[in-house]
Amino acid sequence: MMRCMIALLLLPSLTLGQRSLAEDVSLTRERVRAYRLAHERAILDELVGFLSIPNVASDREAIRRNAEFLRAMLERRGVRAEILDIGDAPPAVYGELLVPTARHTIVFYAHFDGQPVDPSQWASDPWTPVLRDRPLEHGGRVVPWSAIPTPIPGEWRLYARSASDDKSPIVALLTALDALRAAQIPPSVNIKFFFEGEEEAGSPHLRTILQKYADRLKADAWVLCDGPVHQTRRQQVYFGARGIVDLELTVYGPVRPLHSGHYGNWAPNPAALLAQLLASMRDEDGHIRIPGFYDDVRPLTESERRALAEIPDIDAALREELGLGWSEGGGRRLVELIMAPALNVRGLRAGHVGETAQNAIPTEARASIDFRLVPDQTPESVRRRVEEHLRRQGFTIVTEAPTLEQRRRHPKIARLVWGPGYPPARTSMDLPISRALVRLIEETIGAPIVKMPTLGGSIPMYLFQELLNVPVIGVPIVNHDNNQHGANENLRLQNLWDGIELYAVLFAHLGRALEAK
Amino acid sequence: MMRCMIALLLLPSLTLGQRSLAEDVSLTRERVRAYRLAHERAILDELVGFLSIPNVASDREAIRRNAEFLRAMLERRGVRAEILDIGDAPPAVYGELLVPTARHTIVFYAHFDGQPVDPSQWASDPWTPVLRDRPLEHGGRVVPWSAIPTPIPGEWRLYARSASDDKSPIVALLTALDALRAAQIPPSVNIKFFFEGEEEAGSPHLRTILQKYADRLKADAWVLCDGPVHQTRRQQVYFGARGIVDLELTVYGPVRPLHSGHYGNWAPNPAALLAQLLASMRDEDGHIRIPGFYDDVRPLTESERRALAEIPDIDAALREELGLGWSEGGGRRLVELIMAPALNVRGLRAGHVGETAQNAIPTEARASIDFRLVPDQTPESVRRRVEEHLRRQGFTIVTEAPTLEQRRRHPKIARLVWGPGYPPARTSMDLPISRALVRLIEETIGAPIVKMPTLGGSIPMYLFQELLNVPVIGVPIVNHDNNQHGANENLRLQNLWDGIELYAVLFAHLGRALEAK
Repeated sequence: MMRCMIALLLLPSLTLGQRSLAEDVSLTRERVRAYRLAHERAILDELVGFLSIPNVASDREAIRRNAEFLRAMLERRGVRAEILDIGDAPPAVYGELLVPTARHTIVFYAHFDGQPVDPSQWASDPWTPVLRDRPLEHGGRVVPWSAIPTPIPGEWRLYARSASDDKSPIVALLTALDALRAAQIPPSVNIKFFFEGEEEAGSPHLRTILQKYADRLKADAWVLCDGPVHQTRRQQVYFGARGIVDLELTVYGPVRPLHSGHYGNWAPNPAALLAQLLASMRDEDGHIRIPGFYDDVRPLTESERRALAEIPDIDAALREELGLGWSEGGGRRLVELIMAPALNVRGLRAGHVGETAQNAIPTEARASIDFRLVPDQTPESVRRRVEEHLRRQGFTIVTEAPTLEQRRRHPKIARLVWGPGYPPARTSMDLPISRALVRLIEETIGAPIVKMPTLGGSIPMYLFQELLNVPVIGVPIVNHDNNQHGANENLRLQNLWDGIELYAVLFAHLGRALEAK
Repeated sequence: MMRCMIALLLLPSLTLGQRSLAEDVSLTRERVRAYRLAHERAILDELVGFLSIPNVASDREAIRRNAEFLRAMLERRGVRAEILDIGDAPPAVYGELLVPTARHTIVFYAHFDGQPVDPSQWASDPWTPVLRDRPLEHGGRVVPWSAIPTPIPGEWRLYARSASDDKSPIVALLTALDALRAAQIPPSVNIKFFFEGEEEAGSPHLRTILQKYADRLKADAWVLCDGPVHQTRRQQVYFGARGIVDLELTVYGPVRPLHSGHYGNWAPNPAALLAQLLASMRDEDGHIRIPGFYDDVRPLTESERRALAEIPDIDAALREELGLGWSEGGGRRLVELIMAPALNVRGLRAGHVGETAQNAIPTEARASIDFRLVPDQTPESVRRRVEEHLRRQGFTIVTEAPTLEQRRRHPKIARLVWGPGYPPARTSMDLPISRALVRLIEETIGAPIVKMPTLGGSIPMYLFQELLNVPVIGVPIVNHDNNQHGANENLRLQNLWDGIELYAVLFAHLGRALEAK
């Protein structure tokens, strides 16, 4: 059915070719915007339905329901859709819309799983989306679904897990197809969609899926729709991403909680030991003190340094917004710092605090850590250096809870449970696809965009590069202040509206922009 | 009614006087043991009833029920009893049993409140006592109350909050009265009981209660029944106790959780900052690194040092039992180390760990700390030095959650919430009451006892000394491995049986021991 429609659209496409690329882009934006204004409620309803399905990667049944929902969304648009299974791992969803005249094929990537939630921290249920008339922290009130005005104000926010990360980019992509079809503007490239179902769990099966389905995924480039726009709300394009590896670190005290009076000063306190260990790994300025940790860091190129210098300085404003009287890194800018590796202590647990505090020496203390990696670090090199450091600090390393015998025999024991993790990646800014994308997006926006050599966050870009040997570039659309990964994740609606226009222009004109190089 | 009984008993008392103290003690022990053997189940039933009443000091209504229960227990024995109220604070319970011929008055102290509980950590409900046929960690199984044998094995354990700390000493004291009455052995001293209702909350109203009821509490000495026997299971007597002051310490990061990829390395990580701060306060060997912290520590006297040297060395066995491959203090013995102040990190909380870990920079990190104090430190001197240290580390100190403006203005903010705390105390080992007690207890036990200059734990001994100006000496009875303050607190029954005999001997013969000096 879709093939048939595309054949009908070939004629307008050729006549459009006589206008300049700038004129084409402008016309497409106008038509897509008109479509969106006429369909805002329907677009939102589809997104809300999608967000209502819980999507933590460890909940296999829920992930399957998301995948089925997504396949149906694709098929409604005439996109050939398929659930890419490998055993009982969370599946990916694939979509394909081929254009007979297209000379290039682009894969658009997003993920439909979300981070785990702590519902006690949320103002509303994470999987019951609500619309607020402003951000929660500015007193935003829930607007009943029966009382939504037309048009819906762009500053309103939709609250739900994955509202930003990544379900709304998926809806933006598919709505862009709807708008182009309504405007009878055909795609200029073959479009493929690859939607992952366990990105937030560290993509442990992505490699297997990409290998198994390599034939379907052949393309000239991948465009990643994950991540936020720049904190200035400017559109940004990113050419790399930090890698990641996480670590659950547990150190031990006595086998049972001990009265801190009778034994305090003598029985080793695991919370104090953990504090010492963490302090030996990272100073308060964020510098990682583990010997050799920076040895594998590749220096930035000249063009990467230039791109960084052009990025607007938002640090002071960000500190103000985030209630920070200082920032780590000895005064260096955020964009410089995310070019370096990071050690984030994401959680601490030992004994009890506050009302339930007990005068006892805890039996163990635990830290949860995520490391962010930059080229040419790997999870393996990080793991090796961390373990060497722990051994030098006198720790015996175990991977399971230590036995009584082990605890008696070894003075200091650390249990390390490493996540699988993945390495960082970076695409050259000087490739034809890199230049074409930047040019086309700047035409769409009408202003310079932010070009990030490496995004601070982690997405498995390295795999596409390594397995499929293609350039990978990120074109994100959601707001930066979206509480991604935390409680009260949200989407600023204007970002969805703008994202629909941007993706529609990429579909419609990237082919021409690539040929104009 | 009690007065009448005592008059009747005067004759046997005088005739007993013709035997040696050692013979008297031996006879009393035999008769009390016979009484206990004949009444074990009834003794246990009374204790179980008492333990079934929840007793966290912050639960005022429950504390009131405990006090009423305790008053009834005293009155059943003909002890004049009274609830000592001051406003709506947790009350104390007072009891008085005067003996016309007695020349000395001794107050016996214990507390009936217990530490807060985390029921998820308990093998059974903290306020539903269960009897196990051995310790839980050695596979102890619950024995149904309908299947308790006679006699009840001394190695069996009773599990409940306050099973050891301090409800069973209270039952031991009152059962000792029952046994003496049954054996027609009169007390040799005027006996007063003072049972506190908020010791585990730091005794914030004890001063006011002691001042208000000072006339009733006049005595020649206080005997404290709180605390455990020595880890060798030998009887111990203690002449001091460490003081205590607790601190809830919170440091801050961004006002909302931030994606650790996009902001990690730049937004201050409060968990890493807390680790640095704790590491600056205490090394992993337990030495407190806060400048001047040890300046107020009074050196031990010659007799205190001698008493310490006589205490059996149990460190290696304790490490074995507790699964410890090392102990803090650079190899010094436990008994030496508890003569010094301690900083115990009793809890840590920041972000999330394990299954719920999120790749986010937490908004705050919290440590719960208890300091143990020795003469001549005070909570005020500790507080001053800690706060000076924090300021030197660059922290701005606040006592409430900081406002957004404060967070923006001050690079590092620490919120400090101090508990009231109390100072340490130490009674001289060379006073007549000290010598008489040691002699009488060694007669009872038939072996040398452990004489501790200062107990590691904290009890408000200083107040009795300061306000009532009397010697204060501890004579504890419960097992050392009782999980006091932690989950699965328990009592080894033999300690209750032995304690009944010991307290009975003190009631019956302390008067004569004091005169024999």
